[in-house]
Amino acid sequence: MIPQFIIEQKRDGKELAPDDIRVFINEYANGSLPDYQMAAFAMAVYFKGMTAAETATLTDAMMHSGDVLDFSDLPRPTVDKHSTGGVGDKISIPLAPLVAVCGAAVPMISGRGLGITGGTLDKLESIPGYDTSPTTDRFREILASVGCSIIGQTVRLAPADKKLYALRDVTATVPSIPLICASIMSKKLAEGAAALVLDVKCGAGAFMKTLPEARELAKNLVAIGRNMGRSVSALITAMDEPLGATAGNRLEIIESIEVLKGRGPADVIELTLRLAAEMLVCSGGAVRRRRTARPPLQEALKLAKEKLADGSALETFAAMLRAHGGDTRIIDDYDLMKPAPFVTDVTSKKSVYITKVDADIIGRVVLMLGGGRTKATDIIDHSVGIDSLAKVGTKIAKGDLLLRIHAKNENDANAVLPHIRKAFLFAETAPSATPLVIESVG
Amino acid sequence: MIPQFIIEQKRDGKELAPDDIRVFINEYANGSLPDYQMAAFAMAVYFKGMTAAETATLTDAMMHSGDVLDFSDLPRPTVDKHSTGGVGDKISIPLAPLVAVCGAAVPMISGRGLGITGGTLDKLESIPGYDTSPTTDRFREILASVGCSIIGQTVRLAPADKKLYALRDVTATVPSIPLICASIMSKKLAEGAAALVLDVKCGAGAFMKTLPEARELAKNLVAIGRNMGRSVSALITAMDEPLGATAGNRLEIIESIEVLKGRGPADVIELTLRLAAEMLVCSGGAVRRRRTARPPLQEALKLAKEKLADGSALETFAAMLRAHGGDTRIIDDYDLMKPAPFVTDVTSKKSVYITKVDADIIGRVVLMLGGGRTKATDIIDHSVGIDSLAKVGTKIAKGDLLLRIHAKNENDANAVLPHIRKAFLFAETAPSATPLVIESVG
Repeated sequence: MIPQFIIEQKRDGKELAPDDIRVFINEYANGSLPDYQMAAFAMAVYFKGMTAAETATLTDAMMHSGDVLDFSDLPRPTVDKHSTGGVGDKISIPLAPLVAVCGAAVPMISGRGLGITGGTLDKLESIPGYDTSPTTDRFREILASVGCSIIGQTVRLAPADKKLYALRDVTATVPSIPLICASIMSKKLAEGAAALVLDVKCGAGAFMKTLPEARELAKNLVAIGRNMGRSVSALITAMDEPLGATAGNRLEIIESIEVLKGRGPADVIELTLRLAAEMLVCSGGAVRRRRTARPPLQEALKLAKEKLADGSALETFAAMLRAHGGDTRIIDDYDLMKPAPFVTDVTSKKSVYITKVDADIIGRVVLMLGGGRTKATDIIDHSVGIDSLAKVGTKIAKGDLLLRIHAKNENDANAVLPHIRKAFLFAETAPSATPLVIESVG
Repeated sequence: MIPQFIIEQKRDGKELAPDDIRVFINEYANGSLPDYQMAAFAMAVYFKGMTAAETATLTDAMMHSGDVLDFSDLPRPTVDKHSTGGVGDKISIPLAPLVAVCGAAVPMISGRGLGITGGTLDKLESIPGYDTSPTTDRFREILASVGCSIIGQTVRLAPADKKLYALRDVTATVPSIPLICASIMSKKLAEGAAALVLDVKCGAGAFMKTLPEARELAKNLVAIGRNMGRSVSALITAMDEPLGATAGNRLEIIESIEVLKGRGPADVIELTLRLAAEMLVCSGGAVRRRRTARPPLQEALKLAKEKLADGSALETFAAMLRAHGGDTRIIDDYDLMKPAPFVTDVTSKKSVYITKVDADIIGRVVLMLGGGRTKATDIIDHSVGIDSLAKVGTKIAKGDLLLRIHAKNENDANAVLPHIRKAFLFAETAPSATPLVIESVG
């Protein structure tokens, strides 16, 4: 293989041979193909795209650049969920135990937050004692006994993706559908779940700003997964305002527990239930065992609602914490997770309807407060963030809460205030309602 | 400057600010901007191009990455010629002394051959004793006394270009008009001649295969040079068959001397005279001194013809050799340049017209014989090549020479034979004549 000939073919819009893609990725992963050739290649892909077959081969090559887990020996069907990332997206935390208690196994390998996008792993690390890096054997044991386990990356999953992602970040080649798809799917498929549900975020606070873009990404992700023999479906969901009423690690854990207790914001509950149902249908096993005349999705939704309502999902969450060495007392005493030293209310100056809450700005506010990272090596503060966020469509009176700031100190809180004021739009009349789950793909 | 933002702007087709281009190039030249960011940038430029202003800034930044020579203290006007490269292109060798004897000074810094394209420096190194690397002071002295000097790169000229060119070569980003223009012009303008004539080759044996491509390149090159305050013009000339009847270093020196002696092939004579006239007009001084009613180009052509015919260009050539330590006896005894050990004729099998001689194939034949380089570190044999090449349009009888092979041994000669047979096309009737100088630009 002569790398510049492969780059040239892609530059000229030709379809690459599978072997050429494999060798290109293998040599990049083992260091014999230099970054500069991969950078030129990535830019050529940005302009010329890739066919479905090329993207599947790229994904497969990146997946096999490292370890590939296998949970086919578990007695339950395995299913995972991946979100393309948003602000306030804590869904994985109530979702994993809910799906587990409904009968599937959820091996979930999560990442850390970067930029305005939070990371499930950071959220879990708000919980004293929770070990996010058990051995692979222990991970397997927890899956068998509890039914779900959320951990960080403990094995070498898709190292080619890790290397390529870092390169794309500094060469302006991130926004390319085939590269995004191969990046997401090479990691998720290496995690070994037989089924996968994708939550593709769409809106101002998401990477995909418009529905056509989100739809293209969703379709491509589903096609790759199926091409590679997995059961995959996707939901396109709104990410204009933050999800739920909290953003920030500890505050999102609290909201997740509230949902598991049968409380919490309507949008978080709705999306948790809908994704749980989708995962149960996608993985097959759990729902098929119940014989009814209802369509599978309705049946799965009914089951998920029951398990959320009867407290058994909360019990499974507690079991998961226990299995990971986490302090389960936090479930009843949130202050066992260290609160932020300074909390202050931001209230409305008028009686109005809220027509917009900019997720992007709220995400940046959490970053400014120290709850997120601008680069991978940043150390974060789990206590800071915002809660009690007023949702779009709400009518609020003068003096009502827009949100509460949880900060390290008063200065930090004051610094974010002007940004917070810009995040809200108001009107005299109620805005028309927009759906949270926009459409289902696959 | 955040490099990925610059890359992103170019990727999105925006015009870059001059300062951004300068910092980007400076940081690349000093090693603080990595190759992978430049590679992504080059690919973005390949797809999105550059405006005339951007290309001029890029050229200027690359030119100033190293030394910039200045010959404005010489009493004569200075002028250089640059060819985009072809097969059998030895024009610089008779041209430099001819222009010098007509009154301009020709500071010519030449390169080595790569691929099918020969290099003037390699050709000169066929001459025993010729020193291609005098000091800059000695170069200046020779220019003042003889009027012309052809040397290799002795100072750090446009090191950013050198680095970028090597990178483009392995990242499939060579064929980009703005990058080609900046590469050529940054080096040529750093050489310090006040005027520059470009010989843009067009045809099967050239980088630019079609007239529209060649025209675009020529226009861009002229625009950049003028933008940077130089007197620049360009000729687009044919490169379908090789130039002259020889290809290979020693053989091309012999042909050049033949031209200086008033003999040699018509096309080499025509192009030497035409380029000489163009250079004299472009540099101003030499022709302006003669008061006639003729248009400047006609007057310059007449002068060049006179100086070629009266032997004074040959005398200046001898003076240039002497100044560089070269053995001037080669002018009358070509065998003082070591001949190839094995010479063999390739003759025609029929009586026909020659309708095509593929310059690309002849170039590859010289490479195979050892007269060229496939990579910069290859060592070449100056003696090998081809001569007595039959030209397109000639009627040849059965048994007449198509060409002669000069090889290291019989095996080498036999190995190129099948290629040589493929280089020629024949017909029963004469092909229509095509012009050597296709058009003038600027």
